[in-house]
Amino acid sequence: MKAFLNEHFLLNNSIAQTLYHNYAKQMPVIDYHCHLPPAAIAQDLQFENLTQIWLYGDHYKWRAMRANGVDESYITGSKSDKEKFVKWAQTVPFTLRNPLYHWTHLELQRYFGIDTILNAASAEDIYEKCSNLLRTPEYSVRNLLRKMNVKVVCTTDDPADSLEHHQKIKADGFEIKILPAFRPDTAMNVDDAAGFNNYVALIEKASGITVHSFGDYCKALKQRHNYFAENGCVVSDHGLEEIYAEDFTDADIVKAFDKIRAGNALTLAENRQFKSAMLLLFAEWDSEKGWIQQFHLGAIRNNNSRAMKILGADTGWDSIGNFNHGKPLSKFLNKLDIENKLAKTILYNLNPADNELMATMIGNFNDGSVSGKIQWGSGWWFLDQKDGMTRQINALSNLGLLSKFVGMLTDSRSFLSYPRHEYFRRLLCNIFGEDIENGELPNDIEWTGKVIQDICYNNAKQYFNW
Amino acid sequence: MKAFLNEHFLLNNSIAQTLYHNYAKQMPVIDYHCHLPPAAIAQDLQFENLTQIWLYGDHYKWRAMRANGVDESYITGSKSDKEKFVKWAQTVPFTLRNPLYHWTHLELQRYFGIDTILNAASAEDIYEKCSNLLRTPEYSVRNLLRKMNVKVVCTTDDPADSLEHHQKIKADGFEIKILPAFRPDTAMNVDDAAGFNNYVALIEKASGITVHSFGDYCKALKQRHNYFAENGCVVSDHGLEEIYAEDFTDADIVKAFDKIRAGNALTLAENRQFKSAMLLLFAEWDSEKGWIQQFHLGAIRNNNSRAMKILGADTGWDSIGNFNHGKPLSKFLNKLDIENKLAKTILYNLNPADNELMATMIGNFNDGSVSGKIQWGSGWWFLDQKDGMTRQINALSNLGLLSKFVGMLTDSRSFLSYPRHEYFRRLLCNIFGEDIENGELPNDIEWTGKVIQDICYNNAKQYFNW
Amino acid sequence: MKAFLNEHFLLNNSIAQTLYHNYAKQMPVIDYHCHLPPAAIAQDLQFENLTQIWLYGDHYKWRAMRANGVDESYITGSKSDKEKFVKWAQTVPFTLRNPLYHWTHLELQRYFGIDTILNAASAEDIYEKCSNLLRTPEYSVRNLLRKMNVKVVCTTDDPADSLEHHQKIKADGFEIKILPAFRPDTAMNVDDAAGFNNYVALIEKASGITVHSFGDYCKALKQRHNYFAENGCVVSDHGLEEIYAEDFTDADIVKAFDKIRAGNALTLAENRQFKSAMLLLFAEWDSEKGWIQQFHLGAIRNNNSRAMKILGADTGWDSIGNFNHGKPLSKFLNKLDIENKLAKTILYNLNPADNELMATMIGNFNDGSVSGKIQWGSGWWFLDQKDGMTRQINALSNLGLLSKFVGMLTDSRSFLSYPRHEYFRRLLCNIFGEDIENGELPNDIEWTGKVIQDICYNNAKQYFNW
Repeated sequence: MKAFLNEHFLLNNSIAQTLYHNYAKQMPVIDYHCHLPPAAIAQDLQFENLTQIWLYGDHYKWRAMRANGVDESYITGSKSDKEKFVKWAQTVPFTLRNPLYHWTHLELQRYFGIDTILNAASAEDIYEKCSNLLRTPEYSVRNLLRKMNVKVVCTTDDPADSLEHHQKIKADGFEIKILPAFRPDTAMNVDDAAGFNNYVALIEKASGITVHSFGDYCKALKQRHNYFAENGCVVSDHGLEEIYAEDFTDADIVKAFDKIRAGNALTLAENRQFKSAMLLLFAEWDSEKGWIQQFHLGAIRNNNSRAMKILGADTGWDSIGNFNHGKPLSKFLNKLDIENKLAKTILYNLNPADNELMATMIGNFNDGSVSGKIQWGSGWWFLDQKDGMTRQINALSNLGLLSKFVGMLTDSRSFLSYPRHEYFRRLLCNIFGEDIENGELPNDIEWTGKVIQDICYNNAKQYFNW
Repeated sequence: MKAFLNEHFLLNNSIAQTLYHNYAKQMPVIDYHCHLPPAAIAQDLQFENLTQIWLYGDHYKWRAMRANGVDESYITGSKSDKEKFVKWAQTVPFTLRNPLYHWTHLELQRYFGIDTILNAASAEDIYEKCSNLLRTPEYSVRNLLRKMNVKVVCTTDDPADSLEHHQKIKADGFEIKILPAFRPDTAMNVDDAAGFNNYVALIEKASGITVHSFGDYCKALKQRHNYFAENGCVVSDHGLEEIYAEDFTDADIVKAFDKIRAGNALTLAENRQFKSAMLLLFAEWDSEKGWIQQFHLGAIRNNNSRAMKILGADTGWDSIGNFNHGKPLSKFLNKLDIENKLAKTILYNLNPADNELMATMIGNFNDGSVSGKIQWGSGWWFLDQKDGMTRQINALSNLGLLSKFVGMLTDSRSFLSYPRHEYFRRLLCNIFGEDIENGELPNDIEWTGKVIQDICYNNAKQYFNW
Repeated sequence: MKAFLNEHFLLNNSIAQTLYHNYAKQMPVIDYHCHLPPAAIAQDLQFENLTQIWLYGDHYKWRAMRANGVDESYITGSKSDKEKFVKWAQTVPFTLRNPLYHWTHLELQRYFGIDTILNAASAEDIYEKCSNLLRTPEYSVRNLLRKMNVKVVCTTDDPADSLEHHQKIKADGFEIKILPAFRPDTAMNVDDAAGFNNYVALIEKASGITVHSFGDYCKALKQRHNYFAENGCVVSDHGLEEIYAEDFTDADIVKAFDKIRAGNALTLAENRQFKSAMLLLFAEWDSEKGWIQQFHLGAIRNNNSRAMKILGADTGWDSIGNFNHGKPLSKFLNKLDIENKLAKTILYNLNPADNELMATMIGNFNDGSVSGKIQWGSGWWFLDQKDGMTRQINALSNLGLLSKFVGMLTDSRSFLSYPRHEYFRRLLCNIFGEDIENGELPNDIEWTGKVIQDICYNNAKQYFNW
């Protein structure tokens, strides 16, 4: 029996262990999509205690606590940080087999050198020890990134953002690249007229361009796209239920824009046409600039209206949806490809039932111009756990070229989540190790090790031109 | 090599064996959803032979026999019980790797102490031996339930049912709770005007309320809901292709009701609105009474019209469908949650492609008020086999709290199907055992054993307040 | 550690090894669906070099090369056969874990006795050695089929085909049956008026029947169906996104036919009605003649318009789609079953998310008249690899009778792809071997071996009446 979470965690034979310890482990980290707050990096924030860095904003943990019957006052409410932590600690033993159980103990080990299991009994000690460490300079957020050998971080930013924090970080000469990513979800969200018009005002302010027409709106957004590029951005990102690929004319879009600007709700057809038009527009800009575009598809967000009203978005009420991605995705990518405007693209699906669809879709637009031009992104959100990542790796292996995969990203809001790269790497090494052990791959450690290093770091470095 | 179906069946290491034999095995059974006939329990039925208890009504076996090319006369037709049994015995060796192969031999072992493989050669002996035992008092249906350490059984009952058998069982002082469950599928089935109106007549008779209007119909059904509660019911159940969550006004429903009462077919839109309204109504009643509501979603029933005409429903012509459960389910649960009318709920999906959708959907409405308030039900019908149950357990582990799971139910029409609980428990213990063996969980047998006992029995006991 | 691709490849215990080497291996091959060109068999073609037999037409390899960033000139373009081969050889090491890696080395071993790994270093030697062998008489395509112990091959042929090559092969007295299969996809493709009318002209010419009306068109197609039967055909095949099962009247179809014959595009509704009508018609003919009908469902073809324009169909731009197969499939099969016109049928799905739907759908129409009447086809196209085949075998096991499965087919355009049968058999034996080893099946090698031999050969022989 192997001890829990020891050095050979997830590495089930000696080949897997060699592959991890001699090849994967040493590679730096490129985190090309996450939700870290740039302000915290700009000010090199120190957290006051473990609750603040670990529980604030972590809706994965919140969902687990709610499922465990914990009252909201201990989750997002008025209880003290200490009380909240104790409730979390009491919940941890009930998260057996959930990735939270692994993340939790991996993070305690890697950042704080703590091997103890977190539960009600150990809560107090762990809270004190970690909180004390967090108040030392080595635990500033920049040092936490250094500790994990991170080379590049792409945050997620609204086009209206001033990017002042990214500028400050660069001006400070911080050696880790902290780059913005252009995420225009709100800019194309015409579900609600008032919300959309408020957003247009933000873009007017940020761009300095007054918006009288759809043409003006495009100009203003393009100004932001350019501005992001000037600030080092090379990545866009979209969080959508599905790809919109309706047919439309320019006149349709102008009419829809004028309608919503006059405060009127769009019909469903107009709504979908408008989104289709905006997606193409953003994609063309990405192509012009040689950016990489990412699409995170398939979440149903804010399912719980009662909670939404009290707590707002991103507080743990989202779920995996089912959408028909096949034809629209094909149509969208093809429209761009026909005109030679298809940028490098990473597709992410939230429902694993779509894995094989995605893994084959990317092959339709890999035209040989660039190695691994269209990528199928790593297991994401609910799926960035052992089963989810393994299924993604296996489907990509069977239906595409795993060797050209740009690999793992954290997609996280937490400065303590970098061990997810380690987790991914261990799984990856174990998969190769088992294949070699079983005679399903040649015992060529050197080549396999090189392929693993590519997936861990080199492929992303080359793909994003860093 | 392990011998077939020995004491360590499905338990692949010593930790798994310890977890099963020292923790899981001893726990009583709560069968919170099944299709056992209450009349048989009321009269404490003795079956005359093995065919009657084992083959009558078991459409799983019938499908296997048909796939094996057995003529219908040996399945549901006029052949003798003995002849039918022999055909089944001849089919069994062709069911290798089907759960029937496991169920069959597990049931022979557990109920009859028979270790022999069932096939053409052993058919006669096994038939005689088991039939003889079945005619002894220890094999009355009540004793069969006692033998399996069953504590509670929820049957599946139409609102028009008199519940006389449940009353008789209770009056007899039978120490195992045999409780009704409120299953109003027919009460909302407006696919066919004649059938619906016949049903309304049944409800009028059962409730003593004459139905002149939709309001009357609700009153009459509510009377039945109350009556079920008076008879110990705390569980409702729905067998539906999908959740209906259309928008409607009260006037729409009144109009649709009057239309179908006049013998006219509803349009598809009216049909779906009516079902949407009824689902909300039942859900609100369940919430008021603190019942648990169950939704079995995703079967396409009665695919074979030729067989339906001759044999009727539930004779083996149903299949797994594909329906878009995401948005409607979210909308339905949210509508109830907004008004604080969301009862404890168990969702079951028949298509495993929806596993991850379901496992995350429950998290949207776990509000911390009750531990494990919204449950994702165990692998069901076609899925209550090794792969199906394992995938459900893994998805629930990864996306929710397995530790709060209310666990297994038989969903069966047969008095011999209780070893399915054992089967589930063995799988569960093996899953935990392998994680511990691999260092993916701490070697804490006591805690793991407690969690397993919770899933086997304690969680259900607490969840249903028994 | 097991050596790569040794004699026990994929056979992970001694039982699996016994089952494969003593039972499965010796069985002949029936390839009841493939895309081998009959002309090549008629002339007993010798290929000039390894590129011609291995890379020409193999869009699996092309996709891998494109994903690896290889320029199209080395794939379908003007580079020499040798240069193309070298680019493929350079790509092979990047296909680790893709089935191409296994197929490639298995084919080198089985056909050419080469154990070396193919890569840039070994490319030249392997190219020369194999090309030299290909020019010897033992490597004519008929001898390649003999080498693999093939007994029957069904090609895929358009109704307008003259079948002259099949006639020549038969006249030559070639001992391996090379039979046509009736694939009327184009005959029902009314997506484009010009294309459809061109096709009608082809059918007029082939049948000698002038088409003035829909009635004439049916007569002409029926003439081809009869002609195929006279030439040994017993199998039809359909490659469709989905089953069309719309309601229609005869008048609807006549009207749609006249409309498209006049050069007008059909509406979507007319289009789907026409396809629905044709599918029923073909199915009825198949039933009358006792043929077996096959349906390959779920691909989205020709996603990349740019490539389609240059390279045409079947050049590597297809993908797995998502379609709602449940209700239409049920309706279509039921319509035929009601009238006693449901032929033996094999259903194939391309999206593994539909596996369980398919595995249960077949059970709805297995009426006991014939053992295994409705079959769920083996993992196909993107899915004929280890994971895809294993999941199909497991789902079929759990939800139907694996023992009645007609097993593997190549679905290939290549004369070197017969080791896929070996691959399937090894997987199958390993699955049974692991079950026996784990005590999940009795240690009855003889019976298990017989079941395996049935799946490898006997079931297909009986099912197709060969």
